[in-house]
Amino acid sequence: MSATTATNYKEIIDNAIKAIHTRGFYAQYPEHPKAYGEEAPVKGLDAFNNQLNNPFKGLLQKNEAAWIGEESSPYTGKPLGITYPVFEVETLVVRAGRAFDAWKKLSVDSRAEILVDALERVKDRFFEIAHATQHSTGQSFMMSFQASGPHASDRALEALAMGYEELQRFPANVVWEKPMGKTSVVLQKQFKAIPKGVGLVIGCSTFPIWNSVPGMFASLITGNSVIVKPHPKSIYPIAIVVAEIQNALQAKGVDINVCQLAVDTSAKLVTKQLAEHPLVKLIDYTGGSAFGSYVESIPGKVTFTEKAGVNSVILDSVVDLKPVVQNLSFAVSLYSGQMCTAPQNIFIPAGGIKQGDTVIPYEEVKKALVDAIAGIAAHPQMGPGTLGAIQSEVTLKRVNSLKDIDATILLQPTKVANAEFADARTCSPIVLEVDAKDTGIYEEELFGPIVLIVKTKDTAQSIEIAKHMAEKHGAITFSAYTTDEATANTITEELESVFAPVTLNLTGNIWVNQHAGFSDFHVTGGNPAGNASFSNPEYVNKRFVWVGHRRV
Amino acid sequence: MSATTATNYKEIIDNAIKAIHTRGFYAQYPEHPKAYGEEAPVKGLDAFNNQLNNPFKGLLQKNEAAWIGEESSPYTGKPLGITYPVFEVETLVVRAGRAFDAWKKLSVDSRAEILVDALERVKDRFFEIAHATQHSTGQSFMMSFQASGPHASDRALEALAMGYEELQRFPANVVWEKPMGKTSVVLQKQFKAIPKGVGLVIGCSTFPIWNSVPGMFASLITGNSVIVKPHPKSIYPIAIVVAEIQNALQAKGVDINVCQLAVDTSAKLVTKQLAEHPLVKLIDYTGGSAFGSYVESIPGKVTFTEKAGVNSVILDSVVDLKPVVQNLSFAVSLYSGQMCTAPQNIFIPAGGIKQGDTVIPYEEVKKALVDAIAGIAAHPQMGPGTLGAIQSEVTLKRVNSLKDIDATILLQPTKVANAEFADARTCSPIVLEVDAKDTGIYEEELFGPIVLIVKTKDTAQSIEIAKHMAEKHGAITFSAYTTDEATANTITEELESVFAPVTLNLTGNIWVNQHAGFSDFHVTGGNPAGNASFSNPEYVNKRFVWVGHRRV
Repeated sequence: MSATTATNYKEIIDNAIKAIHTRGFYAQYPEHPKAYGEEAPVKGLDAFNNQLNNPFKGLLQKNEAAWIGEESSPYTGKPLGITYPVFEVETLVVRAGRAFDAWKKLSVDSRAEILVDALERVKDRFFEIAHATQHSTGQSFMMSFQASGPHASDRALEALAMGYEELQRFPANVVWEKPMGKTSVVLQKQFKAIPKGVGLVIGCSTFPIWNSVPGMFASLITGNSVIVKPHPKSIYPIAIVVAEIQNALQAKGVDINVCQLAVDTSAKLVTKQLAEHPLVKLIDYTGGSAFGSYVESIPGKVTFTEKAGVNSVILDSVVDLKPVVQNLSFAVSLYSGQMCTAPQNIFIPAGGIKQGDTVIPYEEVKKALVDAIAGIAAHPQMGPGTLGAIQSEVTLKRVNSLKDIDATILLQPTKVANAEFADARTCSPIVLEVDAKDTGIYEEELFGPIVLIVKTKDTAQSIEIAKHMAEKHGAITFSAYTTDEATANTITEELESVFAPVTLNLTGNIWVNQHAGFSDFHVTGGNPAGNASFSNPEYVNKRFVWVGHRRV
Repeated sequence: MSATTATNYKEIIDNAIKAIHTRGFYAQYPEHPKAYGEEAPVKGLDAFNNQLNNPFKGLLQKNEAAWIGEESSPYTGKPLGITYPVFEVETLVVRAGRAFDAWKKLSVDSRAEILVDALERVKDRFFEIAHATQHSTGQSFMMSFQASGPHASDRALEALAMGYEELQRFPANVVWEKPMGKTSVVLQKQFKAIPKGVGLVIGCSTFPIWNSVPGMFASLITGNSVIVKPHPKSIYPIAIVVAEIQNALQAKGVDINVCQLAVDTSAKLVTKQLAEHPLVKLIDYTGGSAFGSYVESIPGKVTFTEKAGVNSVILDSVVDLKPVVQNLSFAVSLYSGQMCTAPQNIFIPAGGIKQGDTVIPYEEVKKALVDAIAGIAAHPQMGPGTLGAIQSEVTLKRVNSLKDIDATILLQPTKVANAEFADARTCSPIVLEVDAKDTGIYEEELFGPIVLIVKTKDTAQSIEIAKHMAEKHGAITFSAYTTDEATANTITEELESVFAPVTLNLTGNIWVNQHAGFSDFHVTGGNPAGNASFSNPEYVNKRFVWVGHRRV
């Protein structure tokens, strides 16, 4: 199905709804940079360079209290020098409340038209967004382009389309006639989806757009206004999106405060103040588990969280170890393990794994994995292109702190040479070896380029532990390699019972880290990794309430 | 649409799904007793009489620890003398967990077939259920028949059909093929709705079936097992339903512990023990607000609550006061105000209300209302038939305690003569008059035959207070009378903003208390009256989790 031929918002949304129900491959926004023409890359780079060391003037929010900004590039180590307008929390919430009162009265189609227009405007800035993402998150340029550009916009459209469909679930007006013998009782009934109010979207530093736009578009299409509070270290990418939503609103004469950017600094965060404000009814959150659990616990809020998980891989048996190891080493290396979907714990039975009729000993499997991971990091092009840079100094410290723990270090972390950016903050994966009994070491998310090989008694124990981890600590992805159908079934049954999605026998150019819009649910919402899912029906219909009126 | 012609479960469910989306009048189970044939009433009465003073042997649960029962009839004042098998909490939960493991593996269609069969079996016991309901709740026979029989079964079918539809929202199996230049990546994807686990359904004393079956059938169709914990004073009606579900399960060779009855006594309630059990994942609750808020606060549970609300009526202007007063007096009298949907606070402006071009003074409106309420209670047939009996001694005490508060008593409560049951526990409505400023008196739910006339400055103040009440204390219904379209719009906008459904200008044989299956949402879930709604999509899709698996 090709969607680029769609010419109006209705067609774009109809195609998206169809895709959501078909769940085969679909993309409204092609992922290849070449699809956007020859001029787009130059225009994007120019815009980025012109923005550096300047105030971000794209927002239409008025009467700011000050200009602040503290982003710096993980690639150059230098500040971006961009400042953003700041507003008092009360100003933001009052404006959001006022904008909500008008926005909720617009028809679903009016809202949909504006939001699709916003996405089309964002599309024209994919290259600037890519540079902005690269130099705030540390992702490679290509990942920045795809994750923050087409993939994010596809997920935004997915949420929008899901909301659009849910809002039409019941008829707006109905005549209800109840037969009562010779007469009847007639009532006019009206069914309305009433939005909850002001939504808050709390962004993270590593995926400032991809993780934020689904909640934004889900809240907006269902008639809520939103305040977008990015991570103070990754503002620029989402600021562009908010600016384009405001442009689309203004083009239709709608209050631009329907979607506001709320900027703060690491020294003086306003997240809690916003989250606890009584007028804020909806909160979308991506980030660490401790703050996520706090968000979930605030009384009177409907929350949509993506927190941390411990993603496991089980190696049981393979047709051929080589492509398995290739796939797996790439999956753990991609963006230096800074994806919420990256595998962390790799369970290998002490007795080794089957390859056809032979058994590959544990030590050999381990060595193959370690060599492959080391190989990617050492490769002059593939290394920096795959690993990117480390977003935060904290992540680097976490890696280094692991050198002291009670585990065998199979692979020491090193700097990854980057020909383009000599000062890039990089770090190749540290690989540790632990025993199944060492749960204290591997039972929490170790965010960043950290891989643990866990030696288990057998696959049954691997399954038992992986299931327990997902149930207790959450899992966003889970991957297994087995050639035995009974084992595959057991793995699937056990992991799905704790609401972890199972990916089996992945090799080639597709990795467990990738969750495709219009097909894969991202996070199930059923285990501690998060309470929401991009985008199932619940993701949108918790943002409004069905109310039925009756009159004679 | 006539549904009685449907001959198999699939047809019954398809018709129900269509009805849910059409939302015009629909009933699978006709509400008139005559529709069930000549023999049914006699058979039902015989069954009831044979059950009195005997153990309830209909359940298939085995190895009970004891037999207990403490129900008594509000009509005769005598114990029903029925005992039920009791089980340890741990026994119930372990059995529910084991049954869940098998039940979740059945296809949606297998589950649907069993559950429709259960409803058909329940239909054959509507008359016994009516007597059981009358003599535990105090409802009149006709209300007992309709509310616990056809209306309840319709709402059960509605939840079942909603679940059936939601479970088919996404394809079970899909081939995903992503074009990658000259090649492509192909994945087999599987989308599964994984049920949450063991559900607990906590019943109330006044509507033991109507309020319990939607949660039971919603949990069951989505693959969860349920433990039904009725109010110790209203067990018999729902015991029949559980017994018939067990019969339907057994007929298909399925573990009958998929649906268990958990009986306790007022002296030793097991509700908290069940609710807090780690294996219990879903809780449906109907009852008081304090316990409901406790249920909502238990960590790790998905809850569906219906608590108390303060239902308001606004009188602004009428075409003709007489039918308005008739309708309203009946609405407050029905089952002596023991319906969660019964109006409580009637707001009348001090300046009176418009009737066409004239104004009816406040005192006159008040008098008309009081006279009409007194008239119903004093009428030899209409009185007992409408008011029924008082379920609980506590309700009677509440009415009597109001005689001491600082308000004008416009109508004193009295016994309602009942020719059939001389010893019936009855009480006509007490009508109090308060001023708008006396919020301390009227701002909480005063369950039972208690009506408050609240004198306001004007309709604007009536709206302001009614909205505030709904937002702060919840509202399950709201009713207004106005001939002015602008006022109607203001009322609707203000009340829907706090998620209260608005019923306008109701006269004749339909009352605000009635929420029709397949059309009216019961409780919106958006204000403190409860967090769930019979039956919107959220009501079923929070009971399972979409999980997507992928394999090469």
